[in-house]
Amino acid sequence: MDVNEQALEIHKKFKGKITTSLRDTPTADTLRLYYTPGVGGVSKHVADHPETLRDYTWTNNLVAVISDGSAVLGLGNIGPRGAMPVMEGKAMLFKHFADIDSVPIVLDVHTADEIVAAVKAIAPSFGGINLEDIAAPICFEVEDRLKSELDIPVMHDDQHGTAIVALAGLINAMKVVGRKLEDAKIVVAGAGAAGTAIIKLLHLYAKPRIFVVDSKGVISKNRTDLNDEKKELLNYSNFSDLDGSLEEIIQGADVFIGVSKAGALTAEMVKTMDKDPIIFALANPTPEILPEEAIAAGAAIVATGRSDFPNQINNALAFPGIFRGALDNRVNAITDQHKIAAAEVIASLVDAPSPTTIVPPVFDDRLVPAISRVIV
Amino acid sequence: MDVNEQALEIHKKFKGKITTSLRDTPTADTLRLYYTPGVGGVSKHVADHPETLRDYTWTNNLVAVISDGSAVLGLGNIGPRGAMPVMEGKAMLFKHFADIDSVPIVLDVHTADEIVAAVKAIAPSFGGINLEDIAAPICFEVEDRLKSELDIPVMHDDQHGTAIVALAGLINAMKVVGRKLEDAKIVVAGAGAAGTAIIKLLHLYAKPRIFVVDSKGVISKNRTDLNDEKKELLNYSNFSDLDGSLEEIIQGADVFIGVSKAGALTAEMVKTMDKDPIIFALANPTPEILPEEAIAAGAAIVATGRSDFPNQINNALAFPGIFRGALDNRVNAITDQHKIAAAEVIASLVDAPSPTTIVPPVFDDRLVPAISRVIV
Repeated sequence: MDVNEQALEIHKKFKGKITTSLRDTPTADTLRLYYTPGVGGVSKHVADHPETLRDYTWTNNLVAVISDGSAVLGLGNIGPRGAMPVMEGKAMLFKHFADIDSVPIVLDVHTADEIVAAVKAIAPSFGGINLEDIAAPICFEVEDRLKSELDIPVMHDDQHGTAIVALAGLINAMKVVGRKLEDAKIVVAGAGAAGTAIIKLLHLYAKPRIFVVDSKGVISKNRTDLNDEKKELLNYSNFSDLDGSLEEIIQGADVFIGVSKAGALTAEMVKTMDKDPIIFALANPTPEILPEEAIAAGAAIVATGRSDFPNQINNALAFPGIFRGALDNRVNAITDQHKIAAAEVIASLVDAPSPTTIVPPVFDDRLVPAISRVIV
Repeated sequence: MDVNEQALEIHKKFKGKITTSLRDTPTADTLRLYYTPGVGGVSKHVADHPETLRDYTWTNNLVAVISDGSAVLGLGNIGPRGAMPVMEGKAMLFKHFADIDSVPIVLDVHTADEIVAAVKAIAPSFGGINLEDIAAPICFEVEDRLKSELDIPVMHDDQHGTAIVALAGLINAMKVVGRKLEDAKIVVAGAGAAGTAIIKLLHLYAKPRIFVVDSKGVISKNRTDLNDEKKELLNYSNFSDLDGSLEEIIQGADVFIGVSKAGALTAEMVKTMDKDPIIFALANPTPEILPEEAIAAGAAIVATGRSDFPNQINNALAFPGIFRGALDNRVNAITDQHKIAAAEVIASLVDAPSPTTIVPPVFDDRLVPAISRVIV
């Protein structure tokens, strides 16, 4: 059986991945407290003092994983029902890695206005919101509006989880090759959710020279086909107003970060980069270039999104600890400073960075407590 | 400590009532199946065959308990946060009595259009929807629209749970006093969510002579102040076009069903009813008349909504089995026939009906399997 058939089998066997349990088994005596008439006193107290909601309900440890199914894994726009197995999987990761209760919510609406309205409507039910697999550019507006309009932490993990772990990996990769991030020329291929967040976080952290390439070439102010989100990337990239293809702009670069598609980077392009280049080929499931091919072409370090190669840039290194910290410390917004602090913590957990070890393994149990301490 | 203080204490101690758990503890090997890359195969399969969603996700055993907090217990419109402890309590009852996973969702929107839009948006996340504590008349439109527009079972429990258990109790009460429901004169005080559902279900079941009283008196076609929902009740009640007060219409009645407010029924009124009258005084927490007072005034049988008196008309006798059956039997709409069948099952579980035992106790473990068998 291949991995997909095995996955179908185990999902069918357990009929899903999560379930609910009771924190205390009720008796006839305690049911009077957990439900009518006693619960009326709790409801009245919370209605009078809304800030105590988390003291008396499961919302203190609860994150919703919310998707409209418009950009699921490598599958694209497969809708809410198709997205549910992935969102339930994410809820499983929340529980397994951070002991956070998590409920997958898939949405049968797809415009920014509708998604924002639906999430705002249900928001009092949760202690935090993890947006997932919502297509760009709608994901940007949805996250911005929810962050400004809700008083609980909201994070679009495809953007920021990826950006945090990529930054962590890059911090250690630069150490390994003995260079400084602020002096680096970095080419980012892909200007979607993950690419945009990586670009912004890298700029904020070290202001390296960044060039962004989409399917039409380098994003520059000379382009007439840019949407608002891509135009905004000119605030962080291409200050020298260069034009050209990936093949042209990659020449002399220190770092390639791909969040685009399989095969986008060739061995020939790697050979034109600066000495000992760093390649983050993060397209899933097939990276922009396979690690062995990049190494053969001269790459010093290769990272991918996959667990079967070294240096997996895996969101699961970041989001469990970030939400653990936000819930425990009653942090109501995840800021850029939190993201940078989380990246530095993740990088610091690799004792001796090497070409094949720039990030810790996802099962490193120091991750969640260490990250959660800096989300304050 | 009074019951409210005890309830606050136990809620704070356990930080709520429910939690999530994993159906299987993942390992590095199975995480590849539960999450990327394997879950992609499951998502693709479900996207291609949406009818298999419940075979591969927790939706097969999942009911949302949804409220906007506009009519919570005896507390009224206390909003979504205040409602959360009650909805989480209901989720606890689902798990405890029927082993159904249940998630409380409280809504920060309050018009029928907004509630319908929010529930439709999140509906693919669940296997069934229990609407709760939504004020009349909005609750009627919300339930009607969701039932017609969604392909999963939707039930407003304040209406139908109460109606089903009231009918069950009445079936046995009539046996005890040796009368027939179809010959009875029944006065229903209160034309809100519960009252409306009771009236419709009684009419459908036995067509007794029903009179409905609201705060302005008997609902008749001569009234000029009726909203559409109350006008519709004339299809089920007052075919003789009588007018008057509760005090007037109660004379000679066999049954009083109160879903109104504390103290609405006096001993003097009970004395004017037919011989051995049946009193369902269901206002919570304080009934329309206290049982001892009604008995002293000649009542043969008294039921209330409270657990500290005999004959508790408790929704928890019905909803766990109804949703258990709907989920197990993949029933996508809870019909009037289901409600009547459930009421008859509940009534049948009382081996020897007596004035103090017209319904089974909520902890009777025959209830859920017996009811679920008739929801087909």
